[in-house]
Amino acid sequence: MDVREFVEGHRNDFVAALKEWVAIPSVSADPTRHGDVRRSAEWLRDHLRAAGFPTAEVWETGGLPAVFAEWPAADPAAPTVLVYGHHDVQPARVADGWDTDPFVAEERGDRLVGRGTSDDKGQVLFHTLGVKAAIAASGGSAPPVTVRLLVEGEEESGSPHFAELLRANRDRLACDVVVISDTTMWGADTPSMCVGMRGLTDCEISLTGPRADVHSGSFGGAVPNPARALAALLADLHDADGRVAVPGFYDDVVEISDTERALIARLPFDEAEWLRTAGAGAAAGEAGYSTLERVWVRPTAEVNGLWGGHTGAGTKTIVPRSAHAKVSFRLVPDQEPARVQEAVRAFVAERVPAGLRAEVVFNGPGVRPCASDLDSAALRAARSAMERAFGTEVLFTREGGSGPEADIADILRAPLVFVAVGLNDDRIHAPNEKVEIPLLLKGAESAAYLWEHLAVGAPHAG
Amino acid sequence: MDVREFVEGHRNDFVAALKEWVAIPSVSADPTRHGDVRRSAEWLRDHLRAAGFPTAEVWETGGLPAVFAEWPAADPAAPTVLVYGHHDVQPARVADGWDTDPFVAEERGDRLVGRGTSDDKGQVLFHTLGVKAAIAASGGSAPPVTVRLLVEGEEESGSPHFAELLRANRDRLACDVVVISDTTMWGADTPSMCVGMRGLTDCEISLTGPRADVHSGSFGGAVPNPARALAALLADLHDADGRVAVPGFYDDVVEISDTERALIARLPFDEAEWLRTAGAGAAAGEAGYSTLERVWVRPTAEVNGLWGGHTGAGTKTIVPRSAHAKVSFRLVPDQEPARVQEAVRAFVAERVPAGLRAEVVFNGPGVRPCASDLDSAALRAARSAMERAFGTEVLFTREGGSGPEADIADILRAPLVFVAVGLNDDRIHAPNEKVEIPLLLKGAESAAYLWEHLAVGAPHAG
Repeated sequence: MDVREFVEGHRNDFVAALKEWVAIPSVSADPTRHGDVRRSAEWLRDHLRAAGFPTAEVWETGGLPAVFAEWPAADPAAPTVLVYGHHDVQPARVADGWDTDPFVAEERGDRLVGRGTSDDKGQVLFHTLGVKAAIAASGGSAPPVTVRLLVEGEEESGSPHFAELLRANRDRLACDVVVISDTTMWGADTPSMCVGMRGLTDCEISLTGPRADVHSGSFGGAVPNPARALAALLADLHDADGRVAVPGFYDDVVEISDTERALIARLPFDEAEWLRTAGAGAAAGEAGYSTLERVWVRPTAEVNGLWGGHTGAGTKTIVPRSAHAKVSFRLVPDQEPARVQEAVRAFVAERVPAGLRAEVVFNGPGVRPCASDLDSAALRAARSAMERAFGTEVLFTREGGSGPEADIADILRAPLVFVAVGLNDDRIHAPNEKVEIPLLLKGAESAAYLWEHLAVGAPHAG
Repeated sequence: MDVREFVEGHRNDFVAALKEWVAIPSVSADPTRHGDVRRSAEWLRDHLRAAGFPTAEVWETGGLPAVFAEWPAADPAAPTVLVYGHHDVQPARVADGWDTDPFVAEERGDRLVGRGTSDDKGQVLFHTLGVKAAIAASGGSAPPVTVRLLVEGEEESGSPHFAELLRANRDRLACDVVVISDTTMWGADTPSMCVGMRGLTDCEISLTGPRADVHSGSFGGAVPNPARALAALLADLHDADGRVAVPGFYDDVVEISDTERALIARLPFDEAEWLRTAGAGAAAGEAGYSTLERVWVRPTAEVNGLWGGHTGAGTKTIVPRSAHAKVSFRLVPDQEPARVQEAVRAFVAERVPAGLRAEVVFNGPGVRPCASDLDSAALRAARSAMERAFGTEVLFTREGGSGPEADIADILRAPLVFVAVGLNDDRIHAPNEKVEIPLLLKGAESAAYLWEHLAVGAPHAG
């Protein structure tokens, strides 16, 4: 039985398992869901054991648990690969605009709708199918390479304990290649590989003024208003050219090379269609860069949320006691989250009007940006595996989102390749997240071929 | 029995009645409380009937009901006064920071703590006691002037139906003097009369962008962010001198006269103490004006609340679909709310970035500013009544807050005087609102003396 036959023959079992997993609302950002994150880890461990992984364990961290699994190669001299993914998901409530319960995955033709179907449970799960397909195709009882999986539970919360977990388990995680399955392709008809991801650091900024809300009739116009001051501070985050105005923010940014620019310009990009996917009415951003450059190779500051004062029905004529904003910064090589945090703190401190107090609380150490080496053997093997699965040329892209990839490459000292099949219109982090089931099956095929290619030609763990 | 003796002898009944009324949470801004606003009107009607008012009626409006009552003078040639107050209150929830249930008024020594104790139920209620004291002191069975009361139920929502109510009932409301009891005095030891109030118009500004929240990794930095745009718009509301930057905003403002400035400067104003009352860390506002000028005779723009995007626990790295702000404008003579609304709409329309949509919804027609004539006979009578009650000189102030006073004076063509005993530290519109019970009793005394003074010397309805 060949890989494709095996994968397509197991479609229904695969979808059923994914539905079961999606039903566990593993929202790492919501403390009331932490029990569910643990249940999600246990579900995955049991699933991997049932699939045949000789080792499958829940790994504790300082926060929420990860899952580790291993299936040794038949040939002890074969290389080792480590697959990275995550089992936690973004928050989701029907009230946010979902058509159906986000945690009851629903098949609509070839699509599966539900929180985590694309980001990232679907993409973790295709590896179970992929490794079983590779074994079935080889006629043996073990994969052609040693397959290790590390699936963390805090990716949507900035992976605060992941680097520590990697360091503490460096030996058991040792590998020749890291395979990342948490990104997107250019399109269903234009398979591609991601070769870089932005980093991230995010914070909550609070400005506090009066001891309590005070009547704007009695005091308005004569005391500092935290909501107005917050607005001014957020407005100052960007200059008129759309550049981030935090002093020092661009100091470590590696400017895009002409080669990269040309590579990006080769992609068949329909900006109007992209804007429709975003549901946005216009492109907007840093002057001098294209839309794809803005989301892939340029750092940003984004206001993710803000609140303060009276937000209910009707009128309440107050000077609010405080105002708050959640602000995130996407980073590119070689920006360091710690340096950016320091710059943002200084920026806020310089802008606090007399009579107000400011607080800036960063959410963990942040996530470093990363990029693949386009000339490495691992990248070539992964690209040819995907080309075999999809039957067409695979292009290169970058990803605007963030994960703990830089930490993995640095700590495990192994090259990164991205094998992933999400789409930009999967609405990850938004209501009605979905995944294309046929693409998940292509992901499983790609993984199976990649294990074959690496077994015959990839660099070997020393 | 003299007025003071009568008033002080009825303290306990008075406080008991006020507690009963405060227990009805008549929050006009909250649609779920509209039944309570009606119950509050009915309570007041029954209370006035029980006190002896021959006429006491609930008056329907296009919105929430008002209460009208009348007690004709013994002498049919005596003048008529109309007392204005309101029976609706600001929103209040324990979660906002109240020490006790805001709708269970609690006596703490001479203070009564609860929503509406000062603004405005306590100040409406002292008139029942005042009119009974005036009758008792005269030894008759009717007051020395015809006393009419009009107590509306939508003051905290901008009095949207009040002007209409006045026009429709002009005959029954005809009067020689309007007495307003909805303001504050300079201090417990420095009784004063308000001689002007700011107007108000307020709106909700919404900016809407993406069809749904979108992932800031995939789209951040390349599509317009409504939260960022809202911040920029709110920041633009003021210039560097703290002036409102809406074009045309100051066109109709009557600049403060040297006489008024001198009058304001005569008040014993301790700015540090005032800031402590506000719970504010510094004074801030329009350059070139003192703190009292800023809150009394200068118009303002104030952000009362703002919200958008992710406001819950943890991180959600999105470009939010929309962002919203509640913004109110305090107005001074001769600004017209309608003209200001037009200017604000134009200001917002000019600042909407490409790809976003703006909506500005004003909350009703707004409230016009007003001022008393310092040389009128009515004002002199009221001042001497308060001086008799308090036993000391009564100074003049203004009030930064807003009510439908301008409409009353214009529609009924009668001069306004303010007889009120709230204090700036009563925390009206804030958690733990309170009133000083002895001052409410002085209010009742002042009202009783005012009826006597007007009966012998005031101008007479034609």
